Amino acid sequence: MSNSELFKLRSSIRQNKYVGFTSGLARGFVQTNLVVIEEEYAGTFELFCKKNSRACPLLEVVGPRSFTPQLLARNADLRRDLPRYKIFKDGQVIGIKKDIIDIYQPNFVFFLIGCSFTFENALLNEKIELKHVKELKNVSMYNTNVPLIPEGIFKGNLVVSMRPIKYNKVVDATIITAHYPKMHGAPVYIGYPELIGINNLNNVDYGDNIKVGEGEVPMFWACGVSPQNAILNAKLPIAITHVPGHMFITDLKDNYYYEIIE
Amino acid sequence: MSNSELFKLRSSIRQNKYVGFTSGLARGFVQTNLVVIEEEYAGTFELFCKKNSRACPLLEVVGPRSFTPQLLARNADLRRDLPRYKIFKDGQVIGIKKDIIDIYQPNFVFFLIGCSFTFENALLNEKIELKHVKELKNVSMYNTNVPLIPEGIFKGNLVVSMRPIKYNKVVDATIITAHYPKMHGAPVYIGYPELIGINNLNNVDYGDNIKVGEGEVPMFWACGVSPQNAILNAKLPIAITHVPGHMFITDLKDNYYYEIIE
Repeated sequence: MSNSELFKLRSSIRQNKYVGFTSGLARGFVQTNLVVIEEEYAGTFELFCKKNSRACPLLEVVGPRSFTPQLLARNADLRRDLPRYKIFKDGQVIGIKKDIIDIYQPNFVFFLIGCSFTFENALLNEKIELKHVKELKNVSMYNTNVPLIPEGIFKGNLVVSMRPIKYNKVVDATIITAHYPKMHGAPVYIGYPELIGINNLNNVDYGDNIKVGEGEVPMFWACGVSPQNAILNAKLPIAITHVPGHMFITDLKDNYYYEIIE
Repeated sequence: MSNSELFKLRSSIRQNKYVGFTSGLARGFVQTNLVVIEEEYAGTFELFCKKNSRACPLLEVVGPRSFTPQLLARNADLRRDLPRYKIFKDGQVIGIKKDIIDIYQPNFVFFLIGCSFTFENALLNEKIELKHVKELKNVSMYNTNVPLIPEGIFKGNLVVSMRPIKYNKVVDATIITAHYPKMHGAPVYIGYPELIGINNLNNVDYGDNIKVGEGEVPMFWACGVSPQNAILNAKLPIAITHVPGHMFITDLKDNYYYEIIE
């Protein structure tokens, strides 16, 4: 995707014309998860992210009294530039919105967390087939029984994204994604979903159901939806996140976060 | 292991006092597979190794008219310094010997091929348990249904070594071993043995039977026993290899072959 196509897409999202998921979109650009909480909880949440950097690799913190990233997209408005927002109140999801202009508070702090959609371009470039992209679906996501490291009021279990990968591409997919630690990096688990508390792959917790076919192995990457569990548990008066799979698309190219594995 | 302990071990092997397998021995030193064939086949076999570098990562070629490595161990005698040798004649295994002094021919060429025992030290240092080492057994090895790339008279299926690894260490074990491409590198397959033609893990083709316990995933690395299949198929008048798991221990430390993953 070119820069001008990117700006067209963001404008379409800003005008609430595009409200779908972003997997397979803006190939080659960094995508991020979003968590918005009030200033008084921001310090604790940042520590929580740092302790759980595999699930919550923090790319940028914006605000309070600002909604414009300085690193990731200097012309963006985080109140409008995601396709869908999920609103949390006192530990419950109370709604989905296409922008959050009307409920914006100046004491909001926006946490932008790396997203595994970012490394999908690198996988596709190496001829590793991604079924959800091919089928124009959202990625499959699951709650696991693996606890995150708690910090203050923030605790909960890891959420993973799952991609069925042909058995002879599993190791390549592991090594390629390991080069993107800020986008969750290498998978956390490979195969055997029952060992992390996923008893039926057909019951997704978020996103779309993608069948694991014969000769395919389900690979699990840490997912930036994980903090949404922590926000539910923390019962904050108000919190906002992206809807799983409906990410913030940044101005940065994926290779900005490519790291050599030493 | 110190250098002086290493020389003691090699001397014990040279005197045919130690004739066992070498997994778990000489921790931190490079170990190699051995293939010995007559000069006239050496060029074709070297090409075969280069085409199948995952299974046959060539470290050094010695001879003809020499049996002393210049890179790997300048005081070694490849006719005596492996615990056990396997003798092939016209496509059949005709015996096992503790040295090959009496059948040595000056036209022999010795191929030294990297061995996965070399990276076991790095795994153990990262607290990744290796059951065969703990149980003082040889590693499990299996024939697969995965064909090697043929070259001239040399063809056959890939052989893999298998290590049961705790499910939450599988990715770490993948990344750590990827740093040793000359020792077979990252695994070739992870889990699901039936997909590569291994129908019962309890039926090892070489080495010892190591049980895969609950919460463990069988991980498969390319193995330097693979060329033994090719030698059987090639029906050479005479050929010699190590006995699986009974490797040549070199003077070099494992970090000599550590590579950054770019």
